[in-house]
Amino acid sequence: MDRAGFLRLEASMTGLPSPDEVEGWLRRLWPIMRSITGAGQRLTHDMLAELVPFDHWDIPSGTRILDWEVPREWVFRRATLEDPAGRRILDAAEHTLHLVNYSQPFQGSLDLAELQPHLHSLPDRPWAIPYVTSYYAPHWGFCLSDEMRAGLAEGRYGVTIDTEMIDGVMRVSDCVLPPSPGEEDGGEVLFSSYSCHPSMANNELSGPLVLAFLYRALAALPRRRMTYRFVLGPENVGSIAYLSRHGEHLRQRLRAGYVLTNIGDRQPLSLKKSQRGDTLAERAAIQAFTDRDIPHRLLDFDPRGADERNYCSPGYNFPVCALMRSYFQQNPAYHTSDDNLDFVTAESIIAAVEACVDICRVIEANRIWRNTAPFGEPFFSRHDLAPTLSTPGVSADRQLLARRWLLNQCDGSRDILAIAQRCHMPVALLAEQAAILAQAGLLAPGSDHAVSHHLRG
Amino acid sequence: MDRAGFLRLEASMTGLPSPDEVEGWLRRLWPIMRSITGAGQRLTHDMLAELVPFDHWDIPSGTRILDWEVPREWVFRRATLEDPAGRRILDAAEHTLHLVNYSQPFQGSLDLAELQPHLHSLPDRPWAIPYVTSYYAPHWGFCLSDEMRAGLAEGRYGVTIDTEMIDGVMRVSDCVLPPSPGEEDGGEVLFSSYSCHPSMANNELSGPLVLAFLYRALAALPRRRMTYRFVLGPENVGSIAYLSRHGEHLRQRLRAGYVLTNIGDRQPLSLKKSQRGDTLAERAAIQAFTDRDIPHRLLDFDPRGADERNYCSPGYNFPVCALMRSYFQQNPAYHTSDDNLDFVTAESIIAAVEACVDICRVIEANRIWRNTAPFGEPFFSRHDLAPTLSTPGVSADRQLLARRWLLNQCDGSRDILAIAQRCHMPVALLAEQAAILAQAGLLAPGSDHAVSHHLRG
Amino acid sequence: MDRAGFLRLEASMTGLPSPDEVEGWLRRLWPIMRSITGAGQRLTHDMLAELVPFDHWDIPSGTRILDWEVPREWVFRRATLEDPAGRRILDAAEHTLHLVNYSQPFQGSLDLAELQPHLHSLPDRPWAIPYVTSYYAPHWGFCLSDEMRAGLAEGRYGVTIDTEMIDGVMRVSDCVLPPSPGEEDGGEVLFSSYSCHPSMANNELSGPLVLAFLYRALAALPRRRMTYRFVLGPENVGSIAYLSRHGEHLRQRLRAGYVLTNIGDRQPLSLKKSQRGDTLAERAAIQAFTDRDIPHRLLDFDPRGADERNYCSPGYNFPVCALMRSYFQQNPAYHTSDDNLDFVTAESIIAAVEACVDICRVIEANRIWRNTAPFGEPFFSRHDLAPTLSTPGVSADRQLLARRWLLNQCDGSRDILAIAQRCHMPVALLAEQAAILAQAGLLAPGSDHAVSHHLRG
Repeated sequence: MDRAGFLRLEASMTGLPSPDEVEGWLRRLWPIMRSITGAGQRLTHDMLAELVPFDHWDIPSGTRILDWEVPREWVFRRATLEDPAGRRILDAAEHTLHLVNYSQPFQGSLDLAELQPHLHSLPDRPWAIPYVTSYYAPHWGFCLSDEMRAGLAEGRYGVTIDTEMIDGVMRVSDCVLPPSPGEEDGGEVLFSSYSCHPSMANNELSGPLVLAFLYRALAALPRRRMTYRFVLGPENVGSIAYLSRHGEHLRQRLRAGYVLTNIGDRQPLSLKKSQRGDTLAERAAIQAFTDRDIPHRLLDFDPRGADERNYCSPGYNFPVCALMRSYFQQNPAYHTSDDNLDFVTAESIIAAVEACVDICRVIEANRIWRNTAPFGEPFFSRHDLAPTLSTPGVSADRQLLARRWLLNQCDGSRDILAIAQRCHMPVALLAEQAAILAQAGLLAPGSDHAVSHHLRG
Repeated sequence: MDRAGFLRLEASMTGLPSPDEVEGWLRRLWPIMRSITGAGQRLTHDMLAELVPFDHWDIPSGTRILDWEVPREWVFRRATLEDPAGRRILDAAEHTLHLVNYSQPFQGSLDLAELQPHLHSLPDRPWAIPYVTSYYAPHWGFCLSDEMRAGLAEGRYGVTIDTEMIDGVMRVSDCVLPPSPGEEDGGEVLFSSYSCHPSMANNELSGPLVLAFLYRALAALPRRRMTYRFVLGPENVGSIAYLSRHGEHLRQRLRAGYVLTNIGDRQPLSLKKSQRGDTLAERAAIQAFTDRDIPHRLLDFDPRGADERNYCSPGYNFPVCALMRSYFQQNPAYHTSDDNLDFVTAESIIAAVEACVDICRVIEANRIWRNTAPFGEPFFSRHDLAPTLSTPGVSADRQLLARRWLLNQCDGSRDILAIAQRCHMPVALLAEQAAILAQAGLLAPGSDHAVSHHLRG
Repeated sequence: MDRAGFLRLEASMTGLPSPDEVEGWLRRLWPIMRSITGAGQRLTHDMLAELVPFDHWDIPSGTRILDWEVPREWVFRRATLEDPAGRRILDAAEHTLHLVNYSQPFQGSLDLAELQPHLHSLPDRPWAIPYVTSYYAPHWGFCLSDEMRAGLAEGRYGVTIDTEMIDGVMRVSDCVLPPSPGEEDGGEVLFSSYSCHPSMANNELSGPLVLAFLYRALAALPRRRMTYRFVLGPENVGSIAYLSRHGEHLRQRLRAGYVLTNIGDRQPLSLKKSQRGDTLAERAAIQAFTDRDIPHRLLDFDPRGADERNYCSPGYNFPVCALMRSYFQQNPAYHTSDDNLDFVTAESIIAAVEACVDICRVIEANRIWRNTAPFGEPFFSRHDLAPTLSTPGVSADRQLLARRWLLNQCDGSRDILAIAQRCHMPVALLAEQAAILAQAGLLAPGSDHAVSHHLRG
């Protein structure tokens, strides 16, 4: 039984993508007109299914999901604006952001003054096209740079918005990766991202791509205890739908979860804590970052953000953090055309996948052990667990020290993460030494009761 | 139901006094020879009854009150000291501090050496008359400046102390201001001060005056939940008497209390915490100071001070703080003739009244709510609680953020104060938004059990 | 009943040794060839029995003790090394460290190359002889300075190691000092040190000497509540043996314990905390150091060190700290011939004894009291506990303040140490004033339940 094996498999992490592969995927996904429903969102899921064997759940419009209902499906065909001279000055085929997302259909000509309420631009960022949506109130409109808007001449403008609202479906996809055959069942780890944003790279092609490559990397590694669940849907309404179906299952099974979002830019990783703030999710991530010297920032929970707001709503209050780089509104490119393919890097996306694998390693390694010879320190020499010759300096040996910490701390109430934090040793070392002590019969698995108390996050 | 109304009534705070009114009261109360019993104390209560409809409780001498008994009543008529030349050099009619408070009667002439044990002065503050009392051992004496004492010539001095100890009464007054008609019952808030000090302005005309004007201000405001109790008696023995009668009632009903003392000088407000240190009393005061940007100091509890020592004695251990400006012995004018009408300002007294009203607003607004749709974030658009058009920047809107925090945090265990502290938002904003969410049916009152646990201070 | 008496007996602390006495003992004990078993260890115990009326427990080789068994007894007679010229260059009679402790017998001649694996020296500290042991694997060897080793010529060396492994005994000694006749039973305080190290002064003649002189000092003082237990054996295996016999007794009775080690050098005192980190042991020591202005360092627990690793093993998890000066490996002289008689001072040893007595005073004084008049402040004047004349400044009197803190805090749940920490007053003052209040009937002993909860460390 090589319980520590999972932790030593860096060399065999064959699932990691190359920078070229990441860039190829970014270019493929970029131009699609995505929204919370519709063909663009389904196409995106179909393409990512090349990496992840997703189950697609197409939920009919009008289905009740918690306090919400599934919106009608948005059909997009074409959207253009012609100036008084008949020149096509905006075309959603050139940049998906030019159309207000979820625009109602409209065909006609308007004076500039009539058109203005349907135009959206950013005076503070005059070169950029904003990302504007109107999911839940009928509206149509165009988004453009403030510079361009300032140059619009008086006269009549021709509007063609060929869209349609139909009774269709909204897609949420998931995939469950169980432990390797014959292994234990230690509960589930959730990774969740969203696929409803049109042409913006960091927010949100980065999250789905990290999720997909992470699946491939974990599928190639032995999994000793954890089941991994990957969820992709439209932001907010997608996790609402998912929770409406799987919320009770997750309440029983979920040990840690991470919403992946805005994770492809050049900033260090940020961990936004769960509402509870001290669950296995943040404990494992912080320890993984510490053990691997990964620069990172910690952010307190707040109820804005992406799907964590639903996972952390008071009825669920799940151990779910958000893992990101730049934080939403603190990023000036957020929700504008400046969030483009230059704003993200393949290296950032690959490093995020690696960091997620590191977190999973920590969670896999995190167990509750119980010292089976708790009265006094065991006789190391009899168990062949210490050097027989005591010379000055040798007792500082880190492996021996790890064994001593484990034997001292493993009273059946503490998990490896708690011990790592107390003794300032990496989880990998502690898990490896715990396996050796277990082999020698000096550690045994802690009680179920203690496990449920501690490992449920 | 306008639950937030109480918080918006700044403009109608008609009960606040003008500086002229405060100064008039200070001058009226100043010359009275007060003590823990006697006509001066009763007169003070009678005068303040112009502002507060007090019930006067005149307790007979000798009545057992907890570990104490009500002392005999002190009758003061006249006290003078004549020098060997027959000149009247001290007269309690000129400054009440000249007579040791509770002096026994004495008439006779003494040599200077015989007189000295009956003279009290302050070598370190040679210009000031000290405040000396001898309630519980028979003594007579005069207080004078050390400078004057140094100039006393040898010879015989004529002493006239026309006082008397009789079986009389000690007065404790109170007044209870209930919630406005038809409102809920959320327990009681106590304000307590004392009226036994002769001519000192800060300690203690300021406390009774803040108490009286606070009554008037609160009586003019709608009161949604709380009953306000105002208590005035002699220091220490007065609260002992009050607790002997009302201690059990307060144990059931008291949510927060404040001893008002030394609160008229030029220092910022100081909050001396209760023994427990984390009750509703300090939580509400600190939040009110924070929300209103009121400069203040926090002092840890200690068992000296004024009546808080009794309210916080271990048998009661009530949520009672002291609210003051300069802190007792840290103020060099304390208990001397330097604590005069120039030492206090009407503005300080008015600002203290306003701060107390602010604290009461916070307590009134502090409720436990429960999210009635706790699974996922509610569908704001359906409830008409969010802008329908999502454009960059708008989701930072503070009202919407307050709603999100409330829905996330209102699990039936946290009160508004706890939420305000977590999300760094003012109680007024949170209470206003909670009322809107309650109107929409998304928040309901928390359970009684949770209320009793949290709101009992 | 003079409960505070123990605290005032500084003047009569007749048991303290003089510097000459300490130095005499250091010189007597220095040259003995000690090990975890054998005649040298027994001789050391016999000699120290002049100071402490020890019970000697000689445990037969092979006895099962927890996870261990008692090793065979090591008989040492002689150990020399002769160079190729026949000169005796090493002799354990000149320095006990020259022989690897527990060396197997060997007689013969070897080439230098054959000899090298049996030589031990310190390249980083080339002048020093290291201390090397091989208790649990058969080995023989010599320890010498690296400088000397570098000068060894080629040729054949003559080895004489006249030792023997026999079925003998291992000695653990203890002594129990009960409370003075007629006093209460407040549980036990443990002092533990070890006697297996050959000629090193700080590690470990200092610990046994502090332990022995502490016995003499405490035996000369009145002991109001505590039983003192003194344990001396070989390091590690000795405490294993002791716990195998007395572990359950200590679980019932032990309130605080201290392993005395490395306590004679010139560094300030260090307290290494117990595994629990907040027991009576560290609370009392820190308070004693604070009250007496004893410079000290606090060290977090780690599972290395001396016998504390066994006392703090998870099956026991006792309130046992280590009291030392320089900390093991952080001391470059540790486990080398530099830990000699110049490395320690008689003054450091005497000061350590005094500090231990101070700690015992605090533990003796630490009680849980209950205010018998908890409703309001008691009427001090009636109980004759306060000055009857109130003049400015006098209420700051520290004795009166201590009384107020005690009456306020003694709700039957807090011990004197907790009150001392809250009010920043010395335990001696609080205990003295508590005795006065108890005399007046205002304090009574707290409940057994509370005592057991708080005082069990």
